[in-house]
Amino acid sequence: MSDRIKFFLEESKMPKNWYNIAADLPKPLSPPLHPGTLKPIGPDDLAPLFPMALIGQEVSQDKEIEIPEPIREIYKQWRPSPLYRARKLEKFLDTPAKIYYKYEGVSPTGSHKPNTAIAQAFYNKEEGTKKITTETGAGQWGSSLAYACSIFGIELDVYMVKVSFEQKPYRKLIMQTYGARCVASPSSETESGKAILAKDPNSTGSLGIAISEAVEMAAKDKNTKYSLGSVLNHVLMHQTIVGNETLLQMEMAGDYPDILVGCTGGGSNFSGLVFPFLGKKFREKKNTRVIACEPKSCPSLTKGKYAYDFGDTGRLTPLVKMHTLGSQFIPPSTHSGGLRYHGMAPMVSHLKEIGAIEAKAYGQKECFEAGVNFARVEGIVPAPEATHAVKGAIEAALECKNNGKGKTILFNLCGHGHFDMKAYGDYFDNKLEEDKYDEAGINKALEELPKID
Amino acid sequence: MSDRIKFFLEESKMPKNWYNIAADLPKPLSPPLHPGTLKPIGPDDLAPLFPMALIGQEVSQDKEIEIPEPIREIYKQWRPSPLYRARKLEKFLDTPAKIYYKYEGVSPTGSHKPNTAIAQAFYNKEEGTKKITTETGAGQWGSSLAYACSIFGIELDVYMVKVSFEQKPYRKLIMQTYGARCVASPSSETESGKAILAKDPNSTGSLGIAISEAVEMAAKDKNTKYSLGSVLNHVLMHQTIVGNETLLQMEMAGDYPDILVGCTGGGSNFSGLVFPFLGKKFREKKNTRVIACEPKSCPSLTKGKYAYDFGDTGRLTPLVKMHTLGSQFIPPSTHSGGLRYHGMAPMVSHLKEIGAIEAKAYGQKECFEAGVNFARVEGIVPAPEATHAVKGAIEAALECKNNGKGKTILFNLCGHGHFDMKAYGDYFDNKLEEDKYDEAGINKALEELPKID
Repeated sequence: MSDRIKFFLEESKMPKNWYNIAADLPKPLSPPLHPGTLKPIGPDDLAPLFPMALIGQEVSQDKEIEIPEPIREIYKQWRPSPLYRARKLEKFLDTPAKIYYKYEGVSPTGSHKPNTAIAQAFYNKEEGTKKITTETGAGQWGSSLAYACSIFGIELDVYMVKVSFEQKPYRKLIMQTYGARCVASPSSETESGKAILAKDPNSTGSLGIAISEAVEMAAKDKNTKYSLGSVLNHVLMHQTIVGNETLLQMEMAGDYPDILVGCTGGGSNFSGLVFPFLGKKFREKKNTRVIACEPKSCPSLTKGKYAYDFGDTGRLTPLVKMHTLGSQFIPPSTHSGGLRYHGMAPMVSHLKEIGAIEAKAYGQKECFEAGVNFARVEGIVPAPEATHAVKGAIEAALECKNNGKGKTILFNLCGHGHFDMKAYGDYFDNKLEEDKYDEAGINKALEELPKID
Repeated sequence: MSDRIKFFLEESKMPKNWYNIAADLPKPLSPPLHPGTLKPIGPDDLAPLFPMALIGQEVSQDKEIEIPEPIREIYKQWRPSPLYRARKLEKFLDTPAKIYYKYEGVSPTGSHKPNTAIAQAFYNKEEGTKKITTETGAGQWGSSLAYACSIFGIELDVYMVKVSFEQKPYRKLIMQTYGARCVASPSSETESGKAILAKDPNSTGSLGIAISEAVEMAAKDKNTKYSLGSVLNHVLMHQTIVGNETLLQMEMAGDYPDILVGCTGGGSNFSGLVFPFLGKKFREKKNTRVIACEPKSCPSLTKGKYAYDFGDTGRLTPLVKMHTLGSQFIPPSTHSGGLRYHGMAPMVSHLKEIGAIEAKAYGQKECFEAGVNFARVEGIVPAPEATHAVKGAIEAALECKNNGKGKTILFNLCGHGHFDMKAYGDYFDNKLEEDKYDEAGINKALEELPKID
């Protein structure tokens, strides 16, 4: 037992529920507001975009939500995913810390994203949706929703941030292989896209712009719905299968984490792992440290303002209270991974605000360095996004080395880097620019925040 | 039970032995010959290239060879790999056949190759090897040996067929991420490479040439050994962990295959799955049909001659009796996947010769078509090599549909296509040339076979 490296949960023990952290919050979340009336929005406001089942989950206060059996059957294609003890990394770092990682790269698209893609496609199919529109940044989400839509026979249009569309051609191709259509955003297919292109024909795009395009197309047609890969409560909740499994696997390991680490863009893989542990922290007053790791080039949690803002650049979405760099902020195109949303999931932002989690920002070079070291000792090449979590976990383990404390660290290795080797190549060839904190750009975007108190 | 799609073997039930088909052969294999004396070679002839443990396995007649515990511990990073019932593919094809597939894409490098890479690196490390040289075609092998060498701290040089080096840049990058050096072959680092470049400076390379380069470099230095990713008996044997697991998983499914299908380049993933079942066929006189699927552009089993030939283009290796297109044959560079060796594993060739297996050749377009259909219904994007097995399995299932027989089909999905999406892109864009049977080129190469009876 003592030198085991993998903790594999039997299929029969796969959790049957998602965990809804809303039920355990010491202080409730601020509601989303209608951008016209500034009143809290109701289900009817969201109905043009989402199936009712997902709207219900978005506002639910139930602690456990049952995962429908057809979704669990599809999850079983790759779930339960393995939990590893990173014994070789521990040795490499010469740390007294124990390091565990949950590995979500075993899914058919190589990341955690199918956990919610399958659920969203299922509920859409149940309610008769014929077509879905979505946005994608680095492409993990677009590929995963393409996979899910191919299973359920739903047509899919993906608006992909142009800089990633060009940097990551394999992503477009895997979406196409699954039968989806992938369009570089900003595109001339939408009013939102055309407005951006009129101002800047060379715009490299942003998640905020791509969201506007996808929302606009869904709002136009009653058989088309919109789907988001992160940020929203129901999306984060679908990811909690990750943490619920890990709770059982940590029990198998006879251990419990003192420090949890995840990377954050919109917040979904982070939430999936940490929410079930945060629930225990709230209920059982556990002394668990939780660290969100984000890129220096898009530092919403560490440098953003906690304020009501639009979820998209075109200002079509409701207003949500979150850590934001401003919906008009466009992250520098030199950042090679995902994690480039101007805001942060309202739930993650709220947890930061009430002191339940902390956040750190890292530059991409130090993250790739961590990723390469991890690959060489643990054997798995992390996705560029996941290298931020690797970096955070290594930093925590080195702190343990410095102060001689053998803490237990758990992080989410949310995906493999097999589609993203070009970024590793740029790192090796010293072509990667260091992530910069664009203070002027952020200040300008923050000035354009809607004025709400 | 009846609608299960995944049969997952518990880690504790992972087989502890490899299976050696040499022990069950109805007729023994022809021995490899020394190219100078034409006498059967002995262990001393191979000692400059391989550690003694592997030479022992190469000629062993023991039916079971124990997998050393340190290898099993590393296998557990991803093994046992899942067996799936392809229920959605069955429905899509409207066939009475039952289709199962073993999925080896869950390994850290996305294919079956680490099964032998780990074993070879382990035995080399045990015997003090400091550096290994090898060749790779499409790159599955080179990446996997790079992964294994990084675990054991062995330096690695990979000679990669130039056309693939250029077509598949991600492969070089993953080798580099694991710390290996990857060189386009033919290179000017070796005499063999220089000789080829002198004749044809634009040579796109071949596995036979890359083998010559790697063998030459290993033979020069006593601390350097050579490693091969397929063809040799011990390599095929290391892959039988695949079939040994599948035997147990088919029992879990309460089923047994009537038809086995695998793709063949050098023969290793095919052998890994089918040898344990062929053993039962020999011992228990089971009526199992076994089909090897190869590309029309490199049809060693269907169009090659069963004769003694060199394993490499530079004529540095022993002579082995196999189905060969001639060691001077260079497959057309229009073929986009792997499976491009001029010969076939002597053991697989022998099994074909004694009628234990059959072979079929497919064009790459029909294979990609099968791969895309498979991805859309089963959710996994196959590696270009693996699409040949998918095509073979689909063809067998459609035969069942035509003759109304509900046979049980089992194939090896030996890897995912995440590194190889460019080939899918070429297929979608109609840029793939159809695989051609290069009769003139093969006849010319066959004329240059060594004259041995």
